[in-house]
Amino acid sequence: MKYLRQSALMLFSTVFLVSCFNNKDRIKGGISNQNETPTKGKKYWPNGAQLVISVSMQFETGGQPEGAESPFSSTPLPAGQPDLPAESWYRYGGNEGIYRMLDLWKKYNIKVTSHIVGTAAEKYPEVAKAIANEGHEVAAHGFTWDNQWNKSYADELYFVKEGVDVVQKITGKRAVGYNSNWLRRSPNTLKVLQELGFLYHIDDVSHDEPFITKVQGKNFMVIPYTIRNNDIVNIEGKHWSPDQFLTQLKFEFDRLYEEGASKRRMMSISFHDRIGGAPAMIHAMEEFIKYTQKKQGVVFMRKDDIAKMVMNDPNTPVDNSEEKYNK
Amino acid sequence: MKYLRQSALMLFSTVFLVSCFNNKDRIKGGISNQNETPTKGKKYWPNGAQLVISVSMQFETGGQPEGAESPFSSTPLPAGQPDLPAESWYRYGGNEGIYRMLDLWKKYNIKVTSHIVGTAAEKYPEVAKAIANEGHEVAAHGFTWDNQWNKSYADELYFVKEGVDVVQKITGKRAVGYNSNWLRRSPNTLKVLQELGFLYHIDDVSHDEPFITKVQGKNFMVIPYTIRNNDIVNIEGKHWSPDQFLTQLKFEFDRLYEEGASKRRMMSISFHDRIGGAPAMIHAMEEFIKYTQKKQGVVFMRKDDIAKMVMNDPNTPVDNSEEKYNK
Amino acid sequence: MKYLRQSALMLFSTVFLVSCFNNKDRIKGGISNQNETPTKGKKYWPNGAQLVISVSMQFETGGQPEGAESPFSSTPLPAGQPDLPAESWYRYGGNEGIYRMLDLWKKYNIKVTSHIVGTAAEKYPEVAKAIANEGHEVAAHGFTWDNQWNKSYADELYFVKEGVDVVQKITGKRAVGYNSNWLRRSPNTLKVLQELGFLYHIDDVSHDEPFITKVQGKNFMVIPYTIRNNDIVNIEGKHWSPDQFLTQLKFEFDRLYEEGASKRRMMSISFHDRIGGAPAMIHAMEEFIKYTQKKQGVVFMRKDDIAKMVMNDPNTPVDNSEEKYNK
Amino acid sequence: MKYLRQSALMLFSTVFLVSCFNNKDRIKGGISNQNETPTKGKKYWPNGAQLVISVSMQFETGGQPEGAESPFSSTPLPAGQPDLPAESWYRYGGNEGIYRMLDLWKKYNIKVTSHIVGTAAEKYPEVAKAIANEGHEVAAHGFTWDNQWNKSYADELYFVKEGVDVVQKITGKRAVGYNSNWLRRSPNTLKVLQELGFLYHIDDVSHDEPFITKVQGKNFMVIPYTIRNNDIVNIEGKHWSPDQFLTQLKFEFDRLYEEGASKRRMMSISFHDRIGGAPAMIHAMEEFIKYTQKKQGVVFMRKDDIAKMVMNDPNTPVDNSEEKYNK
Repeated sequence: MKYLRQSALMLFSTVFLVSCFNNKDRIKGGISNQNETPTKGKKYWPNGAQLVISVSMQFETGGQPEGAESPFSSTPLPAGQPDLPAESWYRYGGNEGIYRMLDLWKKYNIKVTSHIVGTAAEKYPEVAKAIANEGHEVAAHGFTWDNQWNKSYADELYFVKEGVDVVQKITGKRAVGYNSNWLRRSPNTLKVLQELGFLYHIDDVSHDEPFITKVQGKNFMVIPYTIRNNDIVNIEGKHWSPDQFLTQLKFEFDRLYEEGASKRRMMSISFHDRIGGAPAMIHAMEEFIKYTQKKQGVVFMRKDDIAKMVMNDPNTPVDNSEEKYNK
Repeated sequence: MKYLRQSALMLFSTVFLVSCFNNKDRIKGGISNQNETPTKGKKYWPNGAQLVISVSMQFETGGQPEGAESPFSSTPLPAGQPDLPAESWYRYGGNEGIYRMLDLWKKYNIKVTSHIVGTAAEKYPEVAKAIANEGHEVAAHGFTWDNQWNKSYADELYFVKEGVDVVQKITGKRAVGYNSNWLRRSPNTLKVLQELGFLYHIDDVSHDEPFITKVQGKNFMVIPYTIRNNDIVNIEGKHWSPDQFLTQLKFEFDRLYEEGASKRRMMSISFHDRIGGAPAMIHAMEEFIKYTQKKQGVVFMRKDDIAKMVMNDPNTPVDNSEEKYNK
Repeated sequence: MKYLRQSALMLFSTVFLVSCFNNKDRIKGGISNQNETPTKGKKYWPNGAQLVISVSMQFETGGQPEGAESPFSSTPLPAGQPDLPAESWYRYGGNEGIYRMLDLWKKYNIKVTSHIVGTAAEKYPEVAKAIANEGHEVAAHGFTWDNQWNKSYADELYFVKEGVDVVQKITGKRAVGYNSNWLRRSPNTLKVLQELGFLYHIDDVSHDEPFITKVQGKNFMVIPYTIRNNDIVNIEGKHWSPDQFLTQLKFEFDRLYEEGASKRRMMSISFHDRIGGAPAMIHAMEEFIKYTQKKQGVVFMRKDDIAKMVMNDPNTPVDNSEEKYNK
Repeated sequence: MKYLRQSALMLFSTVFLVSCFNNKDRIKGGISNQNETPTKGKKYWPNGAQLVISVSMQFETGGQPEGAESPFSSTPLPAGQPDLPAESWYRYGGNEGIYRMLDLWKKYNIKVTSHIVGTAAEKYPEVAKAIANEGHEVAAHGFTWDNQWNKSYADELYFVKEGVDVVQKITGKRAVGYNSNWLRRSPNTLKVLQELGFLYHIDDVSHDEPFITKVQGKNFMVIPYTIRNNDIVNIEGKHWSPDQFLTQLKFEFDRLYEEGASKRRMMSISFHDRIGGAPAMIHAMEEFIKYTQKKQGVVFMRKDDIAKMVMNDPNTPVDNSEEKYNK
């Protein structure tokens, strides 16, 4: 109930902001509106956007296990032997990465969703607080950096709840959105999230727009995540250079924006503290943000705001592909 | 016999369309004809094209086995454990990928060849129907997503026939072209296809033009497929970014188009539902289509139309490199 | 003795040709001479070039063993099971690749060195003859596609000699230059080559210019090969796109050309039948050739001509790093 | 004590040079000062720079063990079998790579830090001397190319000291900075370095500026190294082409330079003899240097000069994340 009221309020603010934006010549981030061709006709998002973009900013540093994936982990050291350069690589996320991202979001007045690992917030409480204080969404990402798909219902519930509680204690914000480690939820995850009062999860890449899925008969929102515009997948996994990442964003944007004239479209982007927070990646992201500003009707939004905006909208599609698990 | 008549008819339509195109200023897709330098002199394709381009649109989603290749499969889960994000990645092909491609082909009036896995059509009959209804070629790609090279003659025949029958029941179209899983046919495959009345297969990359090969003494067409312009090979396998894919297409086009002035040349492109159907890849493909429109004499064709156009042409080369298997 | 006389003759022709080039406005390939700034002052190559570029064109198709590296070989089939698409991928080199390269070299009047596997020439004699008839260097690359580093002296001698003899029988040309499989010669290879009357080998990447090494007290030429400008290393191994290959060539050229004003510099490029012979790679190579034509004093040469030009030149450096093997 | 005096002297020279630069129109390397917008306001580096760039030039050739990483090492030969092309690939670093880099640094008046493996200097003393004679920093990189993380305190001390002594004997310079093999120091490394009189180490990538860490209660400098702008990581490891490397440098520079207006920022670059010393990479680096010259307040510095400049500066941050090892 509390969530619903917050939701209505936030939806209102979003719409309000959008209308404000429409009265300015050019705004930083949010929505850009000085354009060659104004968007006309039917709108597919309740807030009138032609394209909604949502950034996930993962904060995980300090929560990683020994030997966690890093540029050093392909030739692992024996168990118990500290991999000092790898550990220093991780610390970069807390020292530099998140703060660099926060600076960028602030410059363009963008609010993002931050998936925070419980033990990362414990290790770097000032970073977690900075995220919350800047108005970004505090979302959950597990108590520790650990597999979730292999836990029992009770263990998974404890694991998720503990992470939410820890982060709430530090930031004052209670998460309503969830991201599993490597997107790999268990068959029980949505039921666990529902029991804990979550509004949505992101670990699904089957659509380019949010959708509803039934969990034990009730609506649960899915705000699709991305592996296409994902720094860990492309930069660390595929070994792309930051200019390739930038071009990927532009190509995807160009297409989704065009499609946004005839259907509801959302673009998802993922940046991790120690990867997306590097200087060249932030340069790429800034170039991308500027690129989107040339178009009208582009809105960057937190995922909780998106969930609240469409969860009761009759035009939001329903997809029960995982019905057998969610009964 | 039925095929031959259809073939004559379709060949006629193609030639007719080409002549029509020649009377318009600029056409979308098909063949572009407003150009700096008109093509003169000898033609190497019966329809007068300087370059024939053929797109394969694989529809496989829903047919994949547990643990099938995905961005998640390099760290596989234990057998029996559902890999939920991987499954959602596959569903994208049926939810978004094929429809996005169909929109693009329609916009440029291009007809493609769709290799459809039998169980994919069973799982997403509306997608299979949409492909057929838009006038694209319904071609075969096995009953399920499974190895074909290790089957006995009888098993292989059943596997191919079952796939064709299933898709025909749903779409009303009977396949005459074949694509094996990962191109890996068995030594019997061409005999199996001949027995089932197929006109051609594509699992050969030895030429840049169609050719005839003798199967049990009779002509069988080979319409070469590609691994050079193949989304699964380059995007998932080689980890290219979509702009690299676009440049590859342009470089290949530039050379083959030039060669098309002095010999018969065909360019083959492959897009899979969940990979080529992503927004950035469709943007790349659209940029490529526009690029080809600057040249005269470029025709996008279905592979069955290509087979029918050249199967009885005396200028079509014969290559019996696999004679020992096809006797 | 015969070689030395040929050598003197060829050196003469090369110098003669270069002087001729200097009298024309612009020539195709060879050497370009219409330029902003004419090269002045000291020359470091006997023929007055500022940069010598040498292309290796490997012809190996038909010589490959079962399961040889291909886009399919990472998931090998059981021994004895033919990998039909992989075999068709190899045939492309003989059907299309070499001929496409020959067309390009002819268009720009470039002579290259072709390293020919004995069994490839046996399988495609018309291809081997076409290479020789166009004036390209017929160089040796082993009797079959096989490891050379693990052979006894006698076996290695037989292996090299058999390859030379087979190719000579078909093309009428006797090789004087050698390239081992994957550059991996044995400690005996240079002694074997010397015994067989070879002038040079290429399996060394330690310098950007030719050098002399002592083999059993006598001079032996090393004309350095490349893994930096090598299609198999970059396209198949590193998964570059052809535009990356083109940019690599331009960057390397820019630097070596500049250095060529103050020292002797050579640039080596490697193209294999089935890889460099693909349309997009030939497009890249043609763009590169055009790029080099904007500079004065660039000469494309066969490696035997280079060896003969510098083998008796006092300015040719000597490097005996492998002395312990070559005593 | 000797170090401190040297330090004061060098700091003075640096500041002096910077002021001199400010009086010239355009200087090669060092600091560029002819610019659109002069830097105003608060400075964050003692020498007034807006961004300090430091290049590491690793000289390792000749020190590598059998089977060391190379383009050939993924398919290793049996132990004892010499991998001749791999060895020639390494020799390139001593024959061409370092000299090519020295030419570039000289052209732009840049001083770099050279991490020299002891046995490399023994094998190529003239290369080690050339580095020292050009005014570059002679820094330590171990006695041989060997793991350091698994050595006892005594063995590690011997290993580091022996490397420093050997190089000092050849070059006349005693190292005060350290780089471990693959950055993988042991928990004892900083204590070992302190005992041997070192000023700083580089094997930490947790900050974009130098920092102080306490080692047994005393200050020890960390001048962060890089894996983002590292030729071995990106070119050999990630298979980037040199143009990708160049774009990475530009993107990183753009962001760090901008940040340099409001905080102290340092950019680290790493080039290895046989990789960064290749022609295309030097072309990329030269393009990057020219790119930085368009901005004011950019200084290329040796790492010892950086350490000395900030080690006693009250604005230099302290980070004791590894306190448990350094007590």
